[in-house]
Parts: sequence; structure tokens; C-alpha cells
Amino acid sequence: MDYTYAPGRNHLFVPGPVNIPDPVIRAMNRQNEDYRSPAVPALTKTLLEDVKKIFKTTTGTPFLFPTTGTGAWESALTNTLSPGDRIVSFLIGQFSLLWIDQQQRLNFKVDVVESDWGQGADLAVLESKLRQDPTHTIKAICIVHNETATGVTNDLSAVRKLLDAYRHPALLLVDGVSSICALDFRMDEWGVDVALTGSQKALSLPTGLGIVCASPKALEASKTAKSVRVFFDWKDYLKFYKMGTYWPYTPSIQLLYGLRTALDLIFEEGLDNVIKRHTRLGTATRLAVEAWGLKNCTQKQEWFSDTVTAVVVPSYIESSDIVKHAWKRYNLSLGLGLNKVAGKVFRIGHLGNLNELQLLGCLSGVEMVLKDVGYPVKLGSGVAAAAAYLSNSTPLIPSRI
Amino acid sequence: MDYTYAPGRNHLFVPGPVNIPDPVIRAMNRQNEDYRSPAVPALTKTLLEDVKKIFKTTTGTPFLFPTTGTGAWESALTNTLSPGDRIVSFLIGQFSLLWIDQQQRLNFKVDVVESDWGQGADLAVLESKLRQDPTHTIKAICIVHNETATGVTNDLSAVRKLLDAYRHPALLLVDGVSSICALDFRMDEWGVDVALTGSQKALSLPTGLGIVCASPKALEASKTAKSVRVFFDWKDYLKFYKMGTYWPYTPSIQLLYGLRTALDLIFEEGLDNVIKRHTRLGTATRLAVEAWGLKNCTQKQEWFSDTVTAVVVPSYIESSDIVKHAWKRYNLSLGLGLNKVAGKVFRIGHLGNLNELQLLGCLSGVEMVLKDVGYPVKLGSGVAAAAAYLSNSTPLIPSRI
Amino acid sequence: MDYTYAPGRNHLFVPGPVNIPDPVIRAMNRQNEDYRSPAVPALTKTLLEDVKKIFKTTTGTPFLFPTTGTGAWESALTNTLSPGDRIVSFLIGQFSLLWIDQQQRLNFKVDVVESDWGQGADLAVLESKLRQDPTHTIKAICIVHNETATGVTNDLSAVRKLLDAYRHPALLLVDGVSSICALDFRMDEWGVDVALTGSQKALSLPTGLGIVCASPKALEASKTAKSVRVFFDWKDYLKFYKMGTYWPYTPSIQLLYGLRTALDLIFEEGLDNVIKRHTRLGTATRLAVEAWGLKNCTQKQEWFSDTVTAVVVPSYIESSDIVKHAWKRYNLSLGLGLNKVAGKVFRIGHLGNLNELQLLGCLSGVEMVLKDVGYPVKLGSGVAAAAAYLSNSTPLIPSRI
Amino acid sequence: MDYTYAPGRNHLFVPGPVNIPDPVIRAMNRQNEDYRSPAVPALTKTLLEDVKKIFKTTTGTPFLFPTTGTGAWESALTNTLSPGDRIVSFLIGQFSLLWIDQQQRLNFKVDVVESDWGQGADLAVLESKLRQDPTHTIKAICIVHNETATGVTNDLSAVRKLLDAYRHPALLLVDGVSSICALDFRMDEWGVDVALTGSQKALSLPTGLGIVCASPKALEASKTAKSVRVFFDWKDYLKFYKMGTYWPYTPSIQLLYGLRTALDLIFEEGLDNVIKRHTRLGTATRLAVEAWGLKNCTQKQEWFSDTVTAVVVPSYIESSDIVKHAWKRYNLSLGLGLNKVAGKVFRIGHLGNLNELQLLGCLSGVEMVLKDVGYPVKLGSGVAAAAAYLSNSTPLIPSRI
Repeated sequence: MDYTYAPGRNHLFVPGPVNIPDPVIRAMNRQNEDYRSPAVPALTKTLLEDVKKIFKTTTGTPFLFPTTGTGAWESALTNTLSPGDRIVSFLIGQFSLLWIDQQQRLNFKVDVVESDWGQGADLAVLESKLRQDPTHTIKAICIVHNETATGVTNDLSAVRKLLDAYRHPALLLVDGVSSICALDFRMDEWGVDVALTGSQKALSLPTGLGIVCASPKALEASKTAKSVRVFFDWKDYLKFYKMGTYWPYTPSIQLLYGLRTALDLIFEEGLDNVIKRHTRLGTATRLAVEAWGLKNCTQKQEWFSDTVTAVVVPSYIESSDIVKHAWKRYNLSLGLGLNKVAGKVFRIGHLGNLNELQLLGCLSGVEMVLKDVGYPVKLGSGVAAAAAYLSNSTPLIPSRI
Repeated sequence: MDYTYAPGRNHLFVPGPVNIPDPVIRAMNRQNEDYRSPAVPALTKTLLEDVKKIFKTTTGTPFLFPTTGTGAWESALTNTLSPGDRIVSFLIGQFSLLWIDQQQRLNFKVDVVESDWGQGADLAVLESKLRQDPTHTIKAICIVHNETATGVTNDLSAVRKLLDAYRHPALLLVDGVSSICALDFRMDEWGVDVALTGSQKALSLPTGLGIVCASPKALEASKTAKSVRVFFDWKDYLKFYKMGTYWPYTPSIQLLYGLRTALDLIFEEGLDNVIKRHTRLGTATRLAVEAWGLKNCTQKQEWFSDTVTAVVVPSYIESSDIVKHAWKRYNLSLGLGLNKVAGKVFRIGHLGNLNELQLLGCLSGVEMVLKDVGYPVKLGSGVAAAAAYLSNSTPLIPSRI
Repeated sequence: MDYTYAPGRNHLFVPGPVNIPDPVIRAMNRQNEDYRSPAVPALTKTLLEDVKKIFKTTTGTPFLFPTTGTGAWESALTNTLSPGDRIVSFLIGQFSLLWIDQQQRLNFKVDVVESDWGQGADLAVLESKLRQDPTHTIKAICIVHNETATGVTNDLSAVRKLLDAYRHPALLLVDGVSSICALDFRMDEWGVDVALTGSQKALSLPTGLGIVCASPKALEASKTAKSVRVFFDWKDYLKFYKMGTYWPYTPSIQLLYGLRTALDLIFEEGLDNVIKRHTRLGTATRLAVEAWGLKNCTQKQEWFSDTVTAVVVPSYIESSDIVKHAWKRYNLSLGLGLNKVAGKVFRIGHLGNLNELQLLGCLSGVEMVLKDVGYPVKLGSGVAAAAAYLSNSTPLIPSRI
Repeated sequence: MDYTYAPGRNHLFVPGPVNIPDPVIRAMNRQNEDYRSPAVPALTKTLLEDVKKIFKTTTGTPFLFPTTGTGAWESALTNTLSPGDRIVSFLIGQFSLLWIDQQQRLNFKVDVVESDWGQGADLAVLESKLRQDPTHTIKAICIVHNETATGVTNDLSAVRKLLDAYRHPALLLVDGVSSICALDFRMDEWGVDVALTGSQKALSLPTGLGIVCASPKALEASKTAKSVRVFFDWKDYLKFYKMGTYWPYTPSIQLLYGLRTALDLIFEEGLDNVIKRHTRLGTATRLAVEAWGLKNCTQKQEWFSDTVTAVVVPSYIESSDIVKHAWKRYNLSLGLGLNKVAGKVFRIGHLGNLNELQLLGCLSGVEMVLKDVGYPVKLGSGVAAAAAYLSNSTPLIPSRI
């Protein structure tokens, strides 16, 4: 029943799916229910209300699609755009690449703005495109808030400022899959029109919910958007929202109760404390990487990601060996390098329901793996650097003071 | 955390989501895992191989989409057809209606063959359409094997015979949502080109997997089908199948382990025994309905469904009162009448991991509810009729002999 | 991993262990914890406070022993009595017999007051013994509130009245294993000195907690009681209660959280409503037995038990065949006849977290089993009788109105 | 419901209760069952057979008491000895002290052989006592294999050698609570007469099973031992073993299935590999302690424990501050110093289902806590020392090669 058993815990440090907190596992440990009984709509109502808080929106409308991030992308695009629409999209790593591929297959005219993998979105190019678009042929800007493949966080407020500066009405569509609930994200303040995430990322649930949040402007756009859509159509949801039954088709009861608990835990910790914790763990990871004498794939500090760190390995090492070895010897799951950076980087995911000692255990594991694959690391060096920082920055656990 | 608690078990007799067996709940009670580790592909491989058995196919290719039945429909249609394609589709109840709505929104030219709700697909009309189509303008026949809204099971082998009789190459697309794993279904023998089901039905899992199985002919069709699709595209899956990693995007680890256990339980019981159990429970339910002096919504025996029974209530009773009352007083979840039969029927789902005494408990509950809403039922009459049949037909539990 | 799998739910109607409510299973689905951290004492404190409510005592001191009912008996006896002490003990069935065996092996001088199995404690004999004991040689009265083997409930208030009438200072020790949390039990009002129950009975938890509650008089007695005891010694607990750490040795973390949830559910339903529900289910069961034309092992109505019914079978039937057959064919677990009534009765447990339709499912199963073993039962007769009563007496579920 | 929630996992490093592996938690996530059905005896039979393997006995008879280690002690003593019997017992820490207290309260004449806390059993004194006992007044030797309070492992084979050398027939009773399933333990080879452990220790289950294993000589002794016992009496178990029903009173169904899985995992890893893993983790811990410049409470290498390390803190630090702080800031649970070493040592439990990175996470946490309480630790030093050793000694995970 359980494949490849190993003693002790699995140390899950891929940038998703992430560690599920025990109370969420408990909440999901349950039977099916009739989703047409009064209980499920009552539960759904609280979820829709509360999920807005993690987007920092009061005006947005959330949708809880039974799908993955890829489906959430499709929902964001097809509900707001029509085939042939021109969109500007930033290519900075594997996940932005996949989204662009989807955009192209959905028949949008995609203006790809490419950066080196390890760099953020090139906003200078965006600015020039906006400047050269007085007739507003650009219908949407598509941007990944945090590129999971390279550990690069884009500056969304700067994007908004550019759009405002040019009074450009393009929709701002944001992939927040590896950012929302972990990085500072402000839907309303930054004028994001569609934001989306997946349940298995910072929300720390199993895979299965693609959470999409639409601004009033995006909802308005959906009324005229001509892209073909049925499963991902917001219209059906809105119809059931109005009826108070909420679900055009069957939701996962287990994920609804899981989301309820996940949100409760986030609110108990405080969303801003959750974000600070991610800053703390991200910083600690980067200090360790530095102490090991390795390079961060992310080329400038302004793009450092607090949810995932892509570590560049020396050319004589194949990074996938690190990932394989970590799993085979230490029950440690690290992220592979993908596509252009395959073999060159491995990734440490440090998002979701995670604490300092879990990260330090991971870092000590990475050190041993590095040694195992022939990199002359000083054992303990990364852990020491991370611990020095953490021991100065970790607060007491509020519920235990 | 738990809404509307009531003492004792909930009696879940909606026609989906259905009761999850405890071993499946246990198998799903788990952490996330890295789906790119060797363990998850190894597991997936066994699932893809074994899931073919529930479709009774050796030549089909299954896909485990992280979606619902509605998404599985969309995947079946968009991968095999192009906008403007003519399809014949049978409208016999709410779920066939919804599928037809989807077909129309996906821009197919849908030849709707309507029957009264309570009747099966009108195959005479199909025959006449096939006869009048020597040039094969009909690209696909879309049929719901078991219409969940009315408890009607269509005769798929008859459909195949007609197609064969006219040597018509139209694809045969079958919604097996409330049939597969419960009713006799033979993909290869009946020449079904795409069959699909959802995890929360007879497989007795939580919602979240849309399982689609494509015949070689359907796969071939997918190479030229022009419908726009990304999330639901078979092509991406086939690419990853070839690489042996299986997943173009993140699956639900929990559902994979759950499916593994669900299949193991079905094979332990024996798929044919599972089907016989459904026949037994369906027959017992119909005997109870008869004993109560009520009518089955299904108009002829040939269409009787062994997974759901829609019971017609006298005109002086509003059937939704029965459903509400059952939930409020007896913790019994029954299915509402939908659309055309709203208020007129209530539904008893008897599919999935269920046994005789669970059903008899449900039937005794229905009797009390009928009395409560003013129908002059003789308490015990339906249970007696069902029990008389069951006590003659229920086998000993093989593992306990 | 799972032995003797059968499709659908097991129908658990032995008089313990009983069905665990899903929220309790969820609460127990957890890791170990350090029981010396501040969290566990804080939790324990609420449990000790709240568990008094199910004994209906404000002056009692509860102990949560990691043991079974047999251990709880031993704790009750050894903490209050000294070897050679004379006690009066009622023998009315297998469990009172086992307790008496324990009393004798613990070297008390046991005055056994025997009744026919199926009758309650003979209080006339008690009265005569009290009358003849002006010097108070009787140190304790030991009585089983509800004899699980025969389904006989004794009248504890009558025992108290006798003791009071004779101003007799004997301690009143009560086995409430199959009564507390299900039958009307009033520790303070009835002057019970030690009452005890087990977690797997009406509390609807797994086995593992022997819950003992001592009156101030019992605590006083424990200071001089000379019976040898260590594991079961109240003194060690009291010492740790004073320190506020509560545990002289390691408790089961899972059972503590489970007990917390079990109590929460009982208080949500209302203890008196829980008791009424047991009256309802007990009455319904007896009506079914009557309708089947079978005899209740309990000889008079005054002793009818609302937690377990022992059904006498005709002499040509071996009752253990009924139990075996129910398990082998219908996945129904019934209680065997024990000792003197072995082969002559089978038992239906109707205690704990259970509702009307569960019971009716069980009763319909019993009917089919009776038919299978050759008893000329009219199928549906018992269910009809029970349902007629239940449909008049079952309230709406408060949380769902 | 959950007290004192903190983000991320709790790091449980008390020397019991220990971390439960996820497959065990899953196996225990279940309903109650009728323990008199054929399934539970069938399961129990395999457990009794397999549990002997962890004691390394083929001739012993195991008992699975629903109790804790304290109860298992009582069972070992009362079944083999009579009040007034002379026993030799070693006092080397808090748990041996508690056992001696129990021995005295059970009215044995206890010859206490005391050592400094941090030293092992004084076998020289034992030898002299044996020498001076030609008439065999000593009925039993009671020894704790691993004293959990000080991290001291006694040499049981040496005890056996002494008994053999003097041909002394005294029973050898061993507390293996924090050793069995983790340290090298050989019941048959070392001629242990009663060995015992608790489920929440190296077996990595919840608390609730006191596992006692009796040699044929111990069983023989139990026939004449006059200590009063009922709940803990082997006789009742043996009677039910003979009948093939196994249980004189209700077992915890959940713990039985949990034990089944726990044993399966141990056998999958290989008991000797489990023991080697403990050696590895114990050694790594000691290397870290040394690197921190702190002293091990255990005074000589021959007594070093591979399941728990008691670390002596400088006199200016109160060790309980370390424990409190670890829990409050890092969600790390460490063991307190007990009794004589209260305030002077803290303990790191490294037993049970645990792996290298979990331990390194713990050690990095201890480093930060030491710094926090004012000890001038070099961060990373202990982790580095441990990792250097572990990276040379940790094998690949067999199932993943």
C-alpha cells in the first residue's frame, strides 16, 4: 500500500505540494456528504468570504475550482479574454513558459517578454510596449508573481504603477500559485484583476482546488469574453452563488473542510505573521546557500523569493543527482531543475506550514548530500549561518507564551 | 468545525457522492508527497493498468484528470471533436441536459433526441438518423449510460448494434458517471470510444478524479480534433506517459492512494460481484417502492437503474419536503428531484460501497418520512418486501465463510 | 491489513465496544505529544472537570485510568476496602459474576446475593442483610447498574433508600460500564461512592480509559484502605492533581483528545437528550422483539435496559448461530449469550453514538437472520413495530431545524 | 480542539511517547469492532507470534495488557513473586526508583543497590549478594535495561553471567521500556525471565499497551506466586489463549491494528537495522553534545544509551528553562531532568521511528536554545559533528535503491 517506505518522516521541501498541517489532515479525514444539503452551502459561504482575505481583497469574487493551478490559469484567461486578443506575458522560467504555452494554445496573440532564467520580469520592455499602445491593443498583462522554477519574485506594484502611469486599461492577470498566503500579495491595492493559486501550495492542502479571484473589472470582462469555456466558466458559479447553493457541480467535501481549517490556522497565526515567517525561512535558506559557497539562481536581491530557492551547482555536478540522492539516502525531497536549468540547479521549497527546525533539518540534509556528490562543503556551515539569523529573528509562539 | 452535527451516522443515499469505505478513508489520511519522486509514477502505473479493468477494456487508454464529471465530459468532447461537428445526443433527464448544454457551448452542432423524463434514449430516432446519414455527417453519438436524475439505464449494446448495422463510423461517447463500477459496462465489447466516470460515484472515493478512457479510435481522432483544450488535453498526458513520469501537472497524492485502495477492494470483492450487489440493492429498492404503492419514475423495466431509483410522489406532496425532512429528522440524505421532475420525485441512490442492512435502514427511514409528510404508507411494508428478496439472494461474505 | 473485509459498513450492535462518532475518530487521528508540556495538563484539567457532568456529580473526584472496565473495578475496590472486608454483591449475570470473582480474588469476604439471570438485584435480601447488621460489618455494597449480559438495569435509588433507611454507612460501589452516559445516573443524588465506566461503552470511544469517580467519603476511605495497589492507586493521581501535572504515568494523548470531543458531542446533544435517545432506541428494540414473538431475557419491565436487549431464542435454535450468521452474511455484529445463557440468548447493543435508522437497519438484519436460522419470523414485523414508535417519538435534530 | 497550536510540525524528542509513523496512524484511524468476532482473534494470533521477535525469544509467552509501563511492571512482579520475597533491585535513576517504590508497595523485601545517577547498575554488589546467598533467598533480580532518566544502558548479559556463575535460580526481571525494539535485547540468549515494554516507546505507537513477555520459568513461577492480582493476572490470559479467543477483557481494536502495522514496519526495515539506526542516532547525538562542550550525564561509554541522552548543563543554567524555551520558541519537545537531576540535565530522546534529518533538526534547535539561555555555544558545531558522522554511516534506504 505504501511505496518505498523509509523510517522516520519524509522531509518534503519541494516547492509544492507542501507539508499539510495535522489539523488539516484531521479535518479532511471524513466521509462524503450530500453537497445539496443546507450544511455545505453554509460552509461554502464562510469559505468564499474568508478566502478573500488571503488575496487581500474586499471587492474580488473568488471561485473554488476542483482543479489544479493549470486549470486555474485556464479559467483566468478564458473568462476574461477572446481568441486573438493581444496579451503581454513574461517568460522567466518553466512555469511562466507553461502558462505562455497555454495562452498560445488558447489562441491569444502573446507578446512574450523574455528574461534570462534567474531574472525577474523585464518591466522596461513592458513600459515600452505600454507607451507604444495608445489604442490599447493590449488586453491583458500576464505575470507570474513568483516563478517557482528559478525562485524569482516579480514586483507587482511596479507593474500596476506602469499601467496607471500610462492609464492603460489592460487587465492584470497574476499567477500567485507559489506566492499567495506566503508572500506579500495585495489584490486590491495593486489592482490585480485576476489572481489565482492552488491548494497544495502555501495554503498547505492537498492538490485539488484551483482558487481564482476576479476583480469587478474582470467580472465585467467575463460578460463579453468570447473564449470557449464550460467547466471553467465563472458564469455557472455566479448563477449558483445567486441561488445560494454555490456549486454548479460536485465539490470535494474533504477539501472544503480542509480549506476551512487551513484558513483558520492562517488566521490564528495571522496572515502577516505567516508572511513574516516565510521571509524568515527564505532569508535563512539564502544565508545557508551563501555559506556553502553556492550561487542562488536568482540574480538580484530584489527578486529573491521567500518561498523557493533555486541553488546553482558547480558545473561538475549534475543537480538531479542531488535530488535523487537526497531522496534515496535521507528521505529528503528537493525540487529538480527544470528545462533550461535542468541539471544546473536544485530547488529548496520553503513555503507552507513549516517551521525553523524543519528547515534546519533540511539544510543539514542538503549539506550531507552536497558532500556525498563531491562538493567540498563544510558540514554545519549552512546550518550555522541560518541558525545565527533565526536565533535572532524567531519570535516566541504566541499561543505558548 | 462540523456543521449541523447529529448523533449517529449520516445515512448517505444521494446518487453521489457516495459512502467511502473505511480502508479508502484510511489510505487517504496522509501527507503530501513529491509527485516527481519515483514512487508516484510507480503507483500511477499500477493505477492506469488497473483502472482499465473497471471499464472492461484492454485497448483503451485511461486518463485520471483532477476534475469532476463535468470536466471529464469536456475532456471527452474536446479531444475528439471539432467545432461545428454534428453529434447526436440523447436528452432524457437533467444530466443528459447538462451535457448537451456543454456540447452546445463547445460549439458542436447537436442533434438532440429527446425522450420523456423517465424513458430511455429513443434508439428508433437514432436509427433513422443513421439511416439518413450515408455521408457520415454525424461525428459522434453522446449518450448517458445511466441518467442519474430519473434512474434510467440505456442499452449501450443496442446503440453499438445500430452503428454496426449501418457501418457508421461515428464515435460513441458514453457518460458512465453513475454506471461504471456498478452496472454492467463493457467498453471493448460495446465499441465505446470514450467512457468516463467520476471518483465520487461507484468508485466510492471523494470527488476530484474525472476518469476518462479513450479507445484507439478516439486517440486517433484526438490528433485532428480542433476543439481548443489545454487543461483537458490528452496530448499532454500522453507525452508524460511516454516519459514515464505520467503527470503534466500536480495530481492529488491522496486520491491516488485512495484510488489504489478503492480498486483493491473492488477486485477483492470481484467486479462482477460488485455489479451483482448493485442489482440486488436496486431490485430490493424497487420492491420497496412497489410495496409503498408508489411509482418508479422509470417507465419501463428495461430501463430500471440499479444505481439510483427516482420515486414519484403523489401530487399532493412536494418531494423536496421529503428530502428536507429526512435530513432534519433522521439524518438521512436523499436526492432531490431536478428540473422537470423537481417536486415530483425524490431519489434513492444505492450505488457504491454499500450493503444490504444500510439500504434497509434507509428504506425504513423513507417509510417514516413518507408517513411524516402525510402519505398513508404502511410502516414496514417496503422493508418487508426488500428483505424478503434480499434474504433469498444475499450471498455469504466470501472472506468470512 | 484489514481482516475479513466485506463491502459496506459493519453494523456494530454488540453492547460494547460501540460505534465511534466520526468527529471523535478525527480528533484521535494524531501524533503523540509530550505529556509534560503545558498543553496536556491544560487539556486534562478540562476533562476532569467535564467528566464529572456525565456522573452527575459536583463533589466527586474522577480518575482517568489507562485501563479497561476490569481495571476500573479493581481500582474502585482496592482503594476503598481492605482484605477481609465484608461486602454485599449482587450476582445477576456474567459481568456481575466476573466482578464478584475479582472481589473474591482480592480477598474480600463477599456476601453474594444471587438472582435468576434475567432478574435484577434482590433488594429484599439486601434489606434483610442491612437489618441484621447493626454493627456495620458490611463495608460496601457492590452493584452493577446495568448487567450487560442479560439487559437488566438495577434501581440504584432504591439501594440508596435502603442504606439510608438503616443509616448504614456501607460504601456504595457501582459498575456503570454499560449505563453511564446512556441511562439515568445520578452519583450525588443517589449517594454513590464509587462509580465507574469504560471509554468504549456509551462514551463511544475506543477501549483504553477506565473512568472512576470517587465521592468524598470514598476518598476518605482510600486513606485507610489496606488493599495492595500501585497502578490503580488514587493516591498517586491525587498527588499529581495537586501539582497540576495530573499524570503519574503516561496517558494516551489520542484518548484524551478523543474524550474531549466525545464530551463536547454529548454536551452539544445534551446529556438528558442522550439519555432520552437511549430510552427511545431501547423501547423500539423491545417492541421489535415482541413483534417477532420472542421473549426478552429481562423478566420484568422495571429492569428493562435501554442499552442492551438480550433476546431469548426458541429452544430449537442455538443463539450463537444467529451471531455467527449475522456476521458472515450481513456484516452485522450482535452479542453472544454468555455463560448460563450461552446458546439461549443473543444480544442487541443499542448504546452509544447511534441513531434511529442505524437501529432499524440492525433490526431488519436480525429479522433476516432469524428467518435464515429457521425461526418463522414475519419479515418487516419488528421494523414496523419499532418504526411506528420511533416515528411518533423522534425529535427533529436541533442543529438542523 | 487543539491546544497551543504552532505552525509546522512539533519536534518530538522526549524519550517517549515518540513519533508515530504515518502508516501506523493510518492503521489506527478506524472504528471499533466486535472483539469476539473471528477477525480479532485471528489478528491477535499473528501479533502474539510476531511480538516475540522483538524480544528475541522463541520460548517466551507474550501478554498485551491494556495498560502502561507502570502496569507492565506490576504484572511482571505480581505474577512471579509473593509478598515478603527478597529481590535485588538497582537504583540508578528516576524510573528504577519508581519501580523500586512499586516493589516496596507490593510488599517485597527489596535489596536496593544504588549507584550515582549517571552510572549503571553496580554488578559488583550484585555479585557479592549472590555469593552470600547460597540458600537462594533472593527470588528475583529487577533491572532496568535502559534508565530513561539518565541515559544509562545496563549490561544484561553480564547479569546473566553472574547468575550462571553462581548457579543462582533468581528470576531475572527486566524493564525494557526504553530499550526493546531499539537496543540490542536478547531475551532467550540472556535468560531474561520477564521482559516488558510500552507501546509508546520504540514501537512508536500511542500509549496503551504494556507488553510483557514471560519465560517458561516465569510462567512456572506464576503458578505459585501469591501476590494478589486480577487485572494483571497472566492466568486469565492463558485461559483465553487456550480457548483461542485471547482476550479476558476488551482490547483496544485500534492499538491491535496499530501494533500489526508497527511490527510490519519494523520487520520491513529489519529489527537489526532498526537497532543500528538507533546506534547511529545515539552516536550522532553524543558527538553533538561533545562539540557543544557539554557533558553527558552518563559517566562511562559502556553505559551510553542509544535511545536517550541526558545532557548536563552548566550550573548557571536551569535545565528546565531549556525545555520550556524549546517548546515555546521552536516547537521542540525535550525531556526534563527528573528528581535528583532536575534542573541539571535535559534529555534528548532519539528512539522510535526517527531518521537522521529529524535528529539534525532537533540538534540545531538545541543549539539555538542553548544560545538563547546564555550558554556560549557555537551554532552549527553540534550539527556539524553529528553530520560528519552520519554522512559516513547512513545507508541508502533499501526500498529506494
